[in-house]
Amino acid sequence: MAPSTNETPAPLEDGTARRGRGRRPAEEVRADVLSTVGEILLNEGLADLTFERVARQSGVSKTTLYKWWPSAGALALESYFHSVEVTLTFPNTGNIRADITGQLRSFVRLMTTTQAGRLLTELIGQSQADIDLATDYRRLYSSHRRQLAADRFAAAQSVGQVRAEIDVQVLVDQLWGAVYHRLLVPDEPVTDAFAIALVDNLFDGITPR
Amino acid sequence: MAPSTNETPAPLEDGTARRGRGRRPAEEVRADVLSTVGEILLNEGLADLTFERVARQSGVSKTTLYKWWPSAGALALESYFHSVEVTLTFPNTGNIRADITGQLRSFVRLMTTTQAGRLLTELIGQSQADIDLATDYRRLYSSHRRQLAADRFAAAQSVGQVRAEIDVQVLVDQLWGAVYHRLLVPDEPVTDAFAIALVDNLFDGITPR
Repeated sequence: MAPSTNETPAPLEDGTARRGRGRRPAEEVRADVLSTVGEILLNEGLADLTFERVARQSGVSKTTLYKWWPSAGALALESYFHSVEVTLTFPNTGNIRADITGQLRSFVRLMTTTQAGRLLTELIGQSQADIDLATDYRRLYSSHRRQLAADRFAAAQSVGQVRAEIDVQVLVDQLWGAVYHRLLVPDEPVTDAFAIALVDNLFDGITPR
Repeated sequence: MAPSTNETPAPLEDGTARRGRGRRPAEEVRADVLSTVGEILLNEGLADLTFERVARQSGVSKTTLYKWWPSAGALALESYFHSVEVTLTFPNTGNIRADITGQLRSFVRLMTTTQAGRLLTELIGQSQADIDLATDYRRLYSSHRRQLAADRFAAAQSVGQVRAEIDVQVLVDQLWGAVYHRLLVPDEPVTDAFAIALVDNLFDGITPR
């Protein structure tokens, strides 16, 4: 269902919003807000994200924003998820190693050349002391990203490119989780070579061949 | 050098502290403080750690504490490092896989059965917004732990148990870093089976054999 952004007029019975008088379907307005916020986040990070500013830049009332998102954190997480969805798509060319390498390199590039890395480490950092943010982070972001990665690995298992007994959720921690670890505790740099080494270690193993 | 805990009398010229009148060498007092704080941290976590309390429980003046540690964070990090040093020792039985598996299982047990996991995620969380704490965390804790792990893997490389071209720092992120990732973003549980799977994936590789 796509309710309109005002209480009146009511949606038509077929579930589409009433047009006319310049009113747009709520789903369209919602998508616009997510896109506006996504751009703010990737270019500037979390610091200046307030409902006031989003209302001003998107032309959507604060009342409507609060109806859709209970907190700035929830709005940021959903916006960020959508804004990186295409960049972080998991290709399926039939070659799991090439597909994962390509995606992980894109992820590292995104983390290091936009505000994304700083945004996520800030959110993860704050969520250690804020249980609501922690729940939102998992519900609106990390659990979805985990599932997308796990699905690609499960497809590779079904065609025999990854052994069936491997717990694909563990691979998520050993690839993307390893990158998050370096972002959060930067003893060592996050580089393209790091992304490639992460994949190589798992696909080749680390013992003598 | 082991300066005494008071300004007078001055240390002797050979660098040892002057005895007598009940004064103990500073190194001994310092070790006592670290041990007192380590116990507080593992049993209760970071919340109630104040210089007031440490002064009271250890019988060392706050002036002396501040002389040795510029902040409660620095004191906590050094205390924690010492308090887990034995538990997290890297054995060298000559079998790298067994040694790493044993150490990683001890690490997981420590993280999940004491306040250690909560302590470290709190410190990492706060360090995202506190550059001094972030620097202290790396300087007083994570860089040392990284080096100990890297040393054990380097020894394994020198006897041909791990391939020479592997970057051992990457392994740190794929083992302990993967555990930190689950502690910080708990989409999936930190278990003994997880520790074993982390090691298995790297030593066996994940592709068909």
